[in-house]
Amino acid sequence: MLKEWIPAEMPEEEELKSRLEAAREKLAVQQLQMKEKKVPVLVLVEGWGTSGKGSSIGRIIQNIDPRFFKVFDMEKKTEEDARKPFLYRHFAKIPEAGKFVFLDSGWMSELTGGYLQGELSEKVYAQRIESVQRFERQLTDNGYLVVKLFLNISKKEQEKRISHLAGEKDTAWRVGSYDVWQHDHYDKCQEVFSDYLKQTNQPSAPWYIIDAKSRKWTELQIMEILTQGIDIALSNSQMAVPLLQNVFPLERMPQLSEIPLDKTISDEDYKKELKQLRQRLGELHNRLYRKKVPVIIAYEGWDAAGKGGNIKRITSALDPRGYEVHPIASPEPHEKARHYLWRFWTRLPKTGHIAIFDRTWYGRVMVERLEGFCSENDWKRAYHEINEFEKELHDWGSVIIKFWVQIDKDTQLERFTERQNTPEKQWKITEEDWRNRDKWDQYEQAVNEMIAKTSTTYAPWHILESVDKKYARIKAMKIVVEELEKALDGHK
Amino acid sequence: MLKEWIPAEMPEEEELKSRLEAAREKLAVQQLQMKEKKVPVLVLVEGWGTSGKGSSIGRIIQNIDPRFFKVFDMEKKTEEDARKPFLYRHFAKIPEAGKFVFLDSGWMSELTGGYLQGELSEKVYAQRIESVQRFERQLTDNGYLVVKLFLNISKKEQEKRISHLAGEKDTAWRVGSYDVWQHDHYDKCQEVFSDYLKQTNQPSAPWYIIDAKSRKWTELQIMEILTQGIDIALSNSQMAVPLLQNVFPLERMPQLSEIPLDKTISDEDYKKELKQLRQRLGELHNRLYRKKVPVIIAYEGWDAAGKGGNIKRITSALDPRGYEVHPIASPEPHEKARHYLWRFWTRLPKTGHIAIFDRTWYGRVMVERLEGFCSENDWKRAYHEINEFEKELHDWGSVIIKFWVQIDKDTQLERFTERQNTPEKQWKITEEDWRNRDKWDQYEQAVNEMIAKTSTTYAPWHILESVDKKYARIKAMKIVVEELEKALDGHK
Repeated sequence: MLKEWIPAEMPEEEELKSRLEAAREKLAVQQLQMKEKKVPVLVLVEGWGTSGKGSSIGRIIQNIDPRFFKVFDMEKKTEEDARKPFLYRHFAKIPEAGKFVFLDSGWMSELTGGYLQGELSEKVYAQRIESVQRFERQLTDNGYLVVKLFLNISKKEQEKRISHLAGEKDTAWRVGSYDVWQHDHYDKCQEVFSDYLKQTNQPSAPWYIIDAKSRKWTELQIMEILTQGIDIALSNSQMAVPLLQNVFPLERMPQLSEIPLDKTISDEDYKKELKQLRQRLGELHNRLYRKKVPVIIAYEGWDAAGKGGNIKRITSALDPRGYEVHPIASPEPHEKARHYLWRFWTRLPKTGHIAIFDRTWYGRVMVERLEGFCSENDWKRAYHEINEFEKELHDWGSVIIKFWVQIDKDTQLERFTERQNTPEKQWKITEEDWRNRDKWDQYEQAVNEMIAKTSTTYAPWHILESVDKKYARIKAMKIVVEELEKALDGHK
Repeated sequence: MLKEWIPAEMPEEEELKSRLEAAREKLAVQQLQMKEKKVPVLVLVEGWGTSGKGSSIGRIIQNIDPRFFKVFDMEKKTEEDARKPFLYRHFAKIPEAGKFVFLDSGWMSELTGGYLQGELSEKVYAQRIESVQRFERQLTDNGYLVVKLFLNISKKEQEKRISHLAGEKDTAWRVGSYDVWQHDHYDKCQEVFSDYLKQTNQPSAPWYIIDAKSRKWTELQIMEILTQGIDIALSNSQMAVPLLQNVFPLERMPQLSEIPLDKTISDEDYKKELKQLRQRLGELHNRLYRKKVPVIIAYEGWDAAGKGGNIKRITSALDPRGYEVHPIASPEPHEKARHYLWRFWTRLPKTGHIAIFDRTWYGRVMVERLEGFCSENDWKRAYHEINEFEKELHDWGSVIIKFWVQIDKDTQLERFTERQNTPEKQWKITEEDWRNRDKWDQYEQAVNEMIAKTSTTYAPWHILESVDKKYARIKAMKIVVEELEKALDGHK
């Protein structure tokens, strides 16, 4: 795309000035409209080394109220980032509704740079481009405006800038070693960049190539593309997008009504097995810490099914420095203002750590679906989005264990009543629990659909029959032990 | 995409029946909603030979009122089709608002088949895939629901069907030579099909792969995908889409106000030149007929600028069997109900022929823009869509000549007044002409933008200074002669 790219003609000084002025005025109005309509805007500024990415962002943000934007320099990965899936640090930076985020380079630089410098194999590079396509599509499908800019300069212009910067003591630090490397391999880089741009040039998040030779002209091009994009985003309210076909391998799962709930364990066996499993789990935790395998354990289930007690038995076997439990309630305002997976992306464990989620991202297709907190298109799309999310985690090397804690309606009533009648347990039962109980049948249908559509082979659901809570605890621990053993087998 | 594709599990007979019944009921309601909301639905059914494309369509349409759909078998190209751009026959079949079109195979079969059988070079194949991406994007951008289905069967299943069909006298004709060829090269075909599916799998028009082993199950999958797609399309009203960056080379053009209008020609020179140019044009017309070069001449200009007389001088030199003049007025209802370029796609000349358009597709960015006949996003998108359209024509080998016939406001007034006062010319002047004249300045701005944004190097605008109509006629003829000579030079 770059070699044959035809830059627009730079206007005369006077026209440039007046168009810039017009764009600035427009942006000033738009930032308020964005706020009102809750449109989030992500501006990804990529481009050649020394093309002026940072300084361009610097000029654009002069025109925006500081409460409405954030700028992140994404060039360097922290040590923490390196222990998360590669999309983590990018996903973590997405703007909240009504605000801007400007990224000074991002996933494009990371991938093309890694590939060009031989850190990413052909295969991993191709896989990550697919991840990027999904990531960007998930953002635009969920109402984000994603503006992707590539600041283009010629080889000659780059040469001029590098020698100019390097020649001055005060600016020499601004020329990085990758800038120089890029310049020495300009043609090769151009080819890889072009190919990347082409592969990720989706109509809903197209690339805009910017002629970055002159500062003011660069600013004008960006301002005009940005304001034009915002205009379009503002004019679209709640739009629905096509539901994609499942492309992930699924396991066949039973309906909830088919699950026999009469399984029990004797107190004696329970104690014995618990002790053994605890010890084994503790050992495995140490090993996976050393082998840097990340583990995600997700709990969903009926109210009063016994999730809390189940989780407690697992964690009792773990070294507290190596795990974290995330109780998931309704989202906070700053969470609600972002893509619904954001609060889970940002809670991912580091490699070698275990994250246990007490309720999860599946809220999207249960409570959010049934209470109308999102549109029908939103929750219907979510099955695929969640499978994609878990695929990222799986490709990263994570173990993913998902539990559905199952009881019947009568058992729930018994437990609710007992909670109600036991003073020290009354805090565990709320009006909402009773309201949810009234919708048991609708929930059951939603859960069946969820389990059927998201039991991928790489992240299947496990059903814990929890009328006998002890039985459920032992079963959960056995599954965790098994899955960790399987995962660690590959790491011997 | 096909090799790793994971089919959904076929439900039990009873579930299948009840889901099919539900989908049928839904579709019955949807067809009326589509009508009301004016949503056009294009269903492209592609797939392996003997996968049951035709019979599947046959079963689906049982559920639709015959007034609301059309089915086209696109397998064979007519001789006429072969003399048009390859997208022509597909574009010509797009549905009108509120109706279905089912295509029994289409551009995918045409391209992959042509490529597999060596009729399309690697380069042309790649170019046509880009054309398809643009074509489908133009449809969805313009409010079309495009449902793309690929009916998949295994090699073994195909074998079974072919031998079954070929074995019976009554069905042997249904096995085509390409079906057999495909079967003999199943793996190669699978690879090419997969690659095609991947390259054209855009989020706004995704592919759905159908497990076509069982008839009823095939029908159910299609019905569910179709009704789901319609649901989404129905929920979207008037949505705006991102404006794409220009990727075509442009020529620098003057503003209308910069064009000197004092050019004239003497009567004597006019007569002499007209005679010479006529003769030359006649000769060229014969040659381009023999060389099968298609020619498109497009006229736009102010009311009373002299388009009609100008066109008359051109056609006076041409063999009537080899050209057609298309006067373009407001679209008919069946034209308005389709993509705005449809009425031009369907009026393209055959190879070796000349089509002259008296007013053109540029109405989108002039009258439709200024009179609010389309949305702002629509006309802003149109510059790029038109450049893409003309690129298709250029790649097909067509000569494209676009004239803007220019006069000043005073000259128009003079001619209007003269028409008004001359009984035999009164039919040429209407209320609308006067109303348009009131908007001269807005039109001038729109025309300037249009000329700047659509003067591609392969289809630039030519300005005809027409205060002296004779001067403009001679200039037009000279340009036509030149352009034809240039084009024929390559065909010696």
